[in-house]
Amino acid sequence: MAIALLTDFGTRDPYVGIMKGTIAQIAPGVPTIDLTHDIPPQDIAAGRFALASAVAYFPLGTIFLAVVDPGVGSARRAIAVACARGYLVGPDNGLFGGVLAQFPARSVVELENSQYWLQATPSATFHGRDVFAAVAAHLAMGVPLENLGRAIALEDLKDLSLPRCRETTMGIEGAVQAIDRFGNLATNIPSKHLRGEKFSVWIGDREIPDGHTYSDVPMGTAIALAGSHGWLEIAINGGSAMACFGASVGTPVRLTARA
Amino acid sequence: MAIALLTDFGTRDPYVGIMKGTIAQIAPGVPTIDLTHDIPPQDIAAGRFALASAVAYFPLGTIFLAVVDPGVGSARRAIAVACARGYLVGPDNGLFGGVLAQFPARSVVELENSQYWLQATPSATFHGRDVFAAVAAHLAMGVPLENLGRAIALEDLKDLSLPRCRETTMGIEGAVQAIDRFGNLATNIPSKHLRGEKFSVWIGDREIPDGHTYSDVPMGTAIALAGSHGWLEIAINGGSAMACFGASVGTPVRLTARA
Amino acid sequence: MAIALLTDFGTRDPYVGIMKGTIAQIAPGVPTIDLTHDIPPQDIAAGRFALASAVAYFPLGTIFLAVVDPGVGSARRAIAVACARGYLVGPDNGLFGGVLAQFPARSVVELENSQYWLQATPSATFHGRDVFAAVAAHLAMGVPLENLGRAIALEDLKDLSLPRCRETTMGIEGAVQAIDRFGNLATNIPSKHLRGEKFSVWIGDREIPDGHTYSDVPMGTAIALAGSHGWLEIAINGGSAMACFGASVGTPVRLTARA
Repeated sequence: MAIALLTDFGTRDPYVGIMKGTIAQIAPGVPTIDLTHDIPPQDIAAGRFALASAVAYFPLGTIFLAVVDPGVGSARRAIAVACARGYLVGPDNGLFGGVLAQFPARSVVELENSQYWLQATPSATFHGRDVFAAVAAHLAMGVPLENLGRAIALEDLKDLSLPRCRETTMGIEGAVQAIDRFGNLATNIPSKHLRGEKFSVWIGDREIPDGHTYSDVPMGTAIALAGSHGWLEIAINGGSAMACFGASVGTPVRLTARA
Repeated sequence: MAIALLTDFGTRDPYVGIMKGTIAQIAPGVPTIDLTHDIPPQDIAAGRFALASAVAYFPLGTIFLAVVDPGVGSARRAIAVACARGYLVGPDNGLFGGVLAQFPARSVVELENSQYWLQATPSATFHGRDVFAAVAAHLAMGVPLENLGRAIALEDLKDLSLPRCRETTMGIEGAVQAIDRFGNLATNIPSKHLRGEKFSVWIGDREIPDGHTYSDVPMGTAIALAGSHGWLEIAINGGSAMACFGASVGTPVRLTARA
Repeated sequence: MAIALLTDFGTRDPYVGIMKGTIAQIAPGVPTIDLTHDIPPQDIAAGRFALASAVAYFPLGTIFLAVVDPGVGSARRAIAVACARGYLVGPDNGLFGGVLAQFPARSVVELENSQYWLQATPSATFHGRDVFAAVAAHLAMGVPLENLGRAIALEDLKDLSLPRCRETTMGIEGAVQAIDRFGNLATNIPSKHLRGEKFSVWIGDREIPDGHTYSDVPMGTAIALAGSHGWLEIAINGGSAMACFGASVGTPVRLTARA
């Protein structure tokens, strides 16, 4: 049983190490795996995307400890969720929405039982250490989910109202939802729409040829393909689509029906 | 028994991985935990602060392997320290001062016994690999501290002469001692002085309201609060206090008595 | 048996975490060690240097999983190599040349047996997850190398034609081959040439004094020394030689015979 960590804490400060120290105190020998700690500060949507891309590749029963938490110390709830893939521990702010769309929640509790926190009165600013890491470690040690606090209804979980792609008479209207280190653009259009070559792909008035992999086009050339995360991706072979198209999260991407 | 690592080596080069390989050779199965490797190059004070913030959250007996070492290869001593919390291994340059202020040293040795180094003649520039990682690994395997070299007196350890906050008739004069990724300012004023609301907090001629957590003030607004590290912290809800105040390490922060 | 990872995936995206999840699924309990994930995107030569610097410091039998793979999804081969130090898994694009120059290959296979991949039809863009991580994990679980695919001849491996230093009647002509976080310049001149003080070291028309360690010269002063990686290194005590000399990979460095 491993604990996978995703935060926006960066790796410059010792915050992540302190969370791992806390886990090592409560759950000695339980391994931790870093998903990423470089989610842009307080960017819940970016954390949601990264987590949703990753969960299916971890062993069943993995505990995902995710902290992108602009509302720390406020009235936002702290939660733990059991789903078909494992457990999710973090703030109730929509961070888990992408995972739960794939792996429906089985039960959710609000983290109220301070017996499983690091201290009964947590700091006001570092629940990653004082609440979430401690609770994840106790889960890893076998504490049942229902001991952590009172059950809450799934439909009460906070959601992020993220733009979805829209099917129109002309085709599909979507947008860039995430950009990776290489400048590849992950859209919010499921990559299945590329199959059968029914659609042309556009950013603005530039049509992007589609293909199977980056090297299907010459170096420096754009390509639309099925991304490894399951979404239509736009890339430049050997280059950055973000730079080439001046794209950012939200940049419109269109599919139009082929004649 | 884990080994926690803190360095200024960054994660771009393989130096940290090489230290972990060295540990794995000498102490197979001993887990390592990264505190941070992004201490600004050769910034002993920043390493000292990060280490001091973290040590209390690790299991008793943890070995802290810390290398911020501008004097590598020179006459600066290499040391290992036993303290109430565990072991410290690294250069004798003040890096451990913040930990030792909380957890007094029980014994200190100078690392002279080359039998516990990676090679009898270490490289002149990478003692992190050739001396410190090797010694930490041997400690983890149960080698007694006193075998590592000759005992030295605590009072002979090098200290960093860091500015402390000063109590005056007007209040308390302190300064920013560290800034995290979010732009939050950690001062050198213990956060206990916020209790009882006896003081007002100032940066220059701007008074900062105090509170419990970031969201006690509107988005974009400054707040002074008890930081999770135990020091008075100045933050902006949803923003960067560093950018907002143009602050850097050393920027003065004042507390003045309330009427 | 640990798996050491080197990629150009960065740590901002969850790609590395996903590879570790994949490993944890196939090879539960097998530890992973990060060498670095911040190789500049698609810079095979930089990955080759980092890997070559590190391999000797890991336990015998370590599996090195290295992915700097501009040709992912194209006809470039995927390989696994057994050498005197352990195993290498990654693309056949020259990334392993530096290791194999030190530890000759014993056998090489092309990864054709999809039974050891994550899925029979891997994604076109993320072989790090779908092929390389899965194969490395199976190797760690004891699958014999020859089961992974058909043997190929060593001399068929792709090589990087890297510039080597050249001995001339005047001395040795070399170049910077890598630059680390501190701005230290690793040349392609073996550091043994510094011994015996037969040569003077030059960048352009500036002669660099040689010594044992950084602090052999005053702060801010250049020094040539034997780098911890085995190559002649040029550094500035307390500063950045890259900045001071305006150096980059390829900048010429000369040794001239002393009178």
